[in-house]
Formats: sequence, structure tokens, C-alpha cells
Amino acid sequence: MAAAIPMERSMQTWMRLMSSDGRIVFGRVENGYLHAYERLDDPAPTGEVLSLRTLTPLAPCAPGKVVALWNNFYALAAKLDKPVPSHPLFLLKPAGSVIGSEQPIRRPAHYDGKIAFEGELGIVIGRRCSNASVKEADESIFGFTIVNDVTAAGLLNENPHFPQWCRSKGFDTFCSIGPAIVSGFDWKRARVVTTLDGVERQNYPLDDMVFTPAEQVSLISRDLTLEPGDVIACGTSLGVGSIPDGSTVEVTIDGIGTLTNRLGAASPGVAKAPATVEGTA
Amino acid sequence: MAAAIPMERSMQTWMRLMSSDGRIVFGRVENGYLHAYERLDDPAPTGEVLSLRTLTPLAPCAPGKVVALWNNFYALAAKLDKPVPSHPLFLLKPAGSVIGSEQPIRRPAHYDGKIAFEGELGIVIGRRCSNASVKEADESIFGFTIVNDVTAAGLLNENPHFPQWCRSKGFDTFCSIGPAIVSGFDWKRARVVTTLDGVERQNYPLDDMVFTPAEQVSLISRDLTLEPGDVIACGTSLGVGSIPDGSTVEVTIDGIGTLTNRLGAASPGVAKAPATVEGTA
Repeated sequence: MAAAIPMERSMQTWMRLMSSDGRIVFGRVENGYLHAYERLDDPAPTGEVLSLRTLTPLAPCAPGKVVALWNNFYALAAKLDKPVPSHPLFLLKPAGSVIGSEQPIRRPAHYDGKIAFEGELGIVIGRRCSNASVKEADESIFGFTIVNDVTAAGLLNENPHFPQWCRSKGFDTFCSIGPAIVSGFDWKRARVVTTLDGVERQNYPLDDMVFTPAEQVSLISRDLTLEPGDVIACGTSLGVGSIPDGSTVEVTIDGIGTLTNRLGAASPGVAKAPATVEGTA
Repeated sequence: MAAAIPMERSMQTWMRLMSSDGRIVFGRVENGYLHAYERLDDPAPTGEVLSLRTLTPLAPCAPGKVVALWNNFYALAAKLDKPVPSHPLFLLKPAGSVIGSEQPIRRPAHYDGKIAFEGELGIVIGRRCSNASVKEADESIFGFTIVNDVTAAGLLNENPHFPQWCRSKGFDTFCSIGPAIVSGFDWKRARVVTTLDGVERQNYPLDDMVFTPAEQVSLISRDLTLEPGDVIACGTSLGVGSIPDGSTVEVTIDGIGTLTNRLGAASPGVAKAPATVEGTA
């Protein structure tokens, strides 16, 4: 009888960290140790085993691109009074926007408007994926992580002729990912809980998604080739809000962990020059 | 007297090519030979000199991201009856969309609508650039190239609640770049001429740009860090049109060259499955 039951993928936790000598290591975490792998699409461990205590966490992967969905939860679509889409609606966040847990979100030097948090499930791609069926797409998913899809909300609709999705969500440090990737994770039973300075602001179930992770990967892979390490941010649901300067956002998905980031000030040394255009909505 | 005249940057042509054994080489072209450099941000030649006849041209750089501008020409803004923007309006095209001259543009497997050409000047970044002044930005420009910013026009406004800029312009092969990068190029006196199967469709002057290349780099570098090899597509002007399957688009900027691409059919072997959503506008 056991042979008829599909084998469950075992749940494993993966991290990317920096060693004390500045080397970046990636691998599977077990009992406080990292079992190193060359890359997430390489199935064989290198044999190196490192104590996590000696390592500094980074974003758990280094995506070439981040595909970020809009309007992918029924509850949010109902609140916004928008029909649910028939294909994932997405923008791209650049690789340079990615930070890890515990790293500061930096206010852009020339923007003093509202900066919003959006707690989300993140899909991490494990193998190159183009025109994939839903089954192939499911097999291309390496695991799941947590994303804070940070947004300069005052810029998004500042120009009435062109919604600035890539700009408002593409600033350096505006894509926090981590703290870990969990393979074999059962997202269907999980919730996304976001707190701002310890006060709960989002708490929504992932089974309210319009497109499941495998459907997202399949449909998006018709549009552009997904590469190992690329991340899809699955979109957010109710409760998005503003981050006051100096405040801390924590996004938790039980089974993956907690992604923690503080909104710092603009980079030191960068003069606060008069903005050319930015609004303060 | 000569000392008082600012030194003009000398005009040099740079290409990226594949050798017969599959190796990618980049360098300066002179008299039919390539003088190889490790990278475009490395000022010293490697000493290797190769005959161009033995090499196959590729896109002249491998951008991590392509920043593509909308509404950056006065003539097009007037025709569209849109005000000129006060900050560059842009979307991101992924690295996977990049092809070089003579490589085919591929129709997406699940899309049978209109595919448009947009002939544009391309800026190639030579050094990392963040919060740059216009002068610093100008010094960060490695050179100029030609871009065909290909667009699945039927998808752009298919969903009335979310213009799909990244999707409609982000398909694999939808960002043709080349054939060369020219440093020290005087873009102000140049024109972009686009032909479709030999018939002229675009012919516009680059001095009609709203934001000059240095202004674009400066303002965009406030939004996201630009890296060596990144490309900014400066936006197009009048004359954008549809590419019938099998037709050839040539974009010429005198002094840089001609970027040639044919629109082929969908990838062989990919079944033309019923589209989930795509329109055919």
C-alpha cells in the first residue's frame, strides 16, 4: 500500500550566509550547522559543514530578477473592487533591490513620501523554466521564502499617464527576502502575518491565492524564462500600510521563519537635494 | 590655444562576439580585428587580438537589467497629446529578453497578436552609478548602442486595471541590442532610422529627447543602482508599427551601425496551446 502513496517531499531549510572572511556560502541547515552546496540547482553537497554561529545571514538566494504579482488574492481583489485577473499581473524588481533579513531598508535620498510594506510568500525557482506545464512548473520550484515587497507608494500614481510600478518598487533595498528557503513547504495551510513595531497589521491565509505557485510559474514561464534563484513574489492581501522612518516590519510564515527589516534613513553622505518630481502622497 | 579646448573623447567601436570554440570575447574593433578586454569596465586590454572574420556577433554587452523609457521625445508626446514627464518614466526588461543583431525575434508560443518595433538609442553604463550628478552620470556612460524595444502590443492594455509594461516588453528575444557600442559618440547630431522590409518607418532626430542621456542616467541612478553593462533604452519617437511574421526590422544610427532582426515563428516544438488571456489588438 505504501507504494501507492505519493512520496511527500521532505521539508528542508536552506540559507545563504557570509563567512567571517567574506565568503558567501549556501546550503542546507540542520541542527545549527550549514551543509554547503555550490548552488541551489546543484544536487550534491560540497562536503563542507559550517557552524551557523560563525556566519552572517544574507538573502537566501541571489535572484537575477524578481517577478512581483499584483492582485493575486481574492480578499484584496474584493476590497479593491477589481476583478481577479485571468493571467498573473506582474512587474519586475531589479536584482539590486534585494536585501536579506536584519538588513536595513533605506529611504531613497530624494523621496520623503510614504513607504509601504507588503508581506508576501516568495517562490524560489530551482531550474530553468520556459513554457512549462503546471506539473513541470511545480517540479521547477526549489522552495518557498518570505518577501517584503517594499513600495514608495507616493510615486506609484504620481504621473497620471504611466503608473510607475518598477520605479516605486525597484529602489535599492526595496525587496527584502528571507530569512530562509524551505523546500517541500506546504504553503496551502500557511498564513502570512506582518507586524509593524510588534503590532499585527496583516494576517491572511495563503489558500486565498488566485494563482497557485505552480500556476504562477507555469503562466509566467510562457512570458519569460525563469532561471535558478529567480524569485516570484506572490502578491499581498489585506492590511498593507505605511512604515514610519525607524520602524521595524516583521513578516512571519510559520515553518519558514520571520523576515525582519527596519526602515532607516537615506544613505549617510547623500545630500537631501530638492526632489525633481516626487510627491508626498 | 589647443589646451583651452576640451579634449573630445575619441570615438571607438566595441563588440561582444563568440569564437568558433564557443568562448565569449569582448573588445575594441579596429581594422577588422578585435582587441580583447576582460570586461567593459576594465581599462586594460588583455593583449589578445582576434580577426573578426572568425567570430560571431552577440549583443555587445550582457546587461543585468534594461531600463526602458516611455514618452521621452517631444514629437511623440505631442502626437500622443501627453505632457512631457518631469522624471524619466520607465519599465524594466529582463536580462533574458536580450538578443543581438542577426538573431531572430521569436513570437511567444501563446500569443498571436500584434508585435511592434521601436527603434531607440541605447545607453551602456560603464561604471556603478548611484545618486549621480549629471556630470558623474555623463562620466559613467561607457558608450551608445541601438535598441529595438520589441513589444507585444496586444497585451499592454489588455487588463484595464494594470498596464502590462513588463510583460508585453519582457518576452525572451524582445530586446535586441547592437551591433556595437560606440564610445565618444556624438548622439546630438544623430538620427534613428527604422525600416521594415526595407521601407522606412521611423526617422527621428535624437536632439528631440526630453531627458538627455546624462540626465537619464543621473535621475534613474537616484532610483536604482546602475551597474556596468546595464542598458537604458532612451524611448522611441514617431513611426512605431507592427512587424508581420517573417518580416525584418533594421534600426540604423549612423556612426553606430545597423541592428537587424527578423521576426520568426514561435519556438519549434512548442505547441500553440489555447491562450488563457491574450488579445489580438
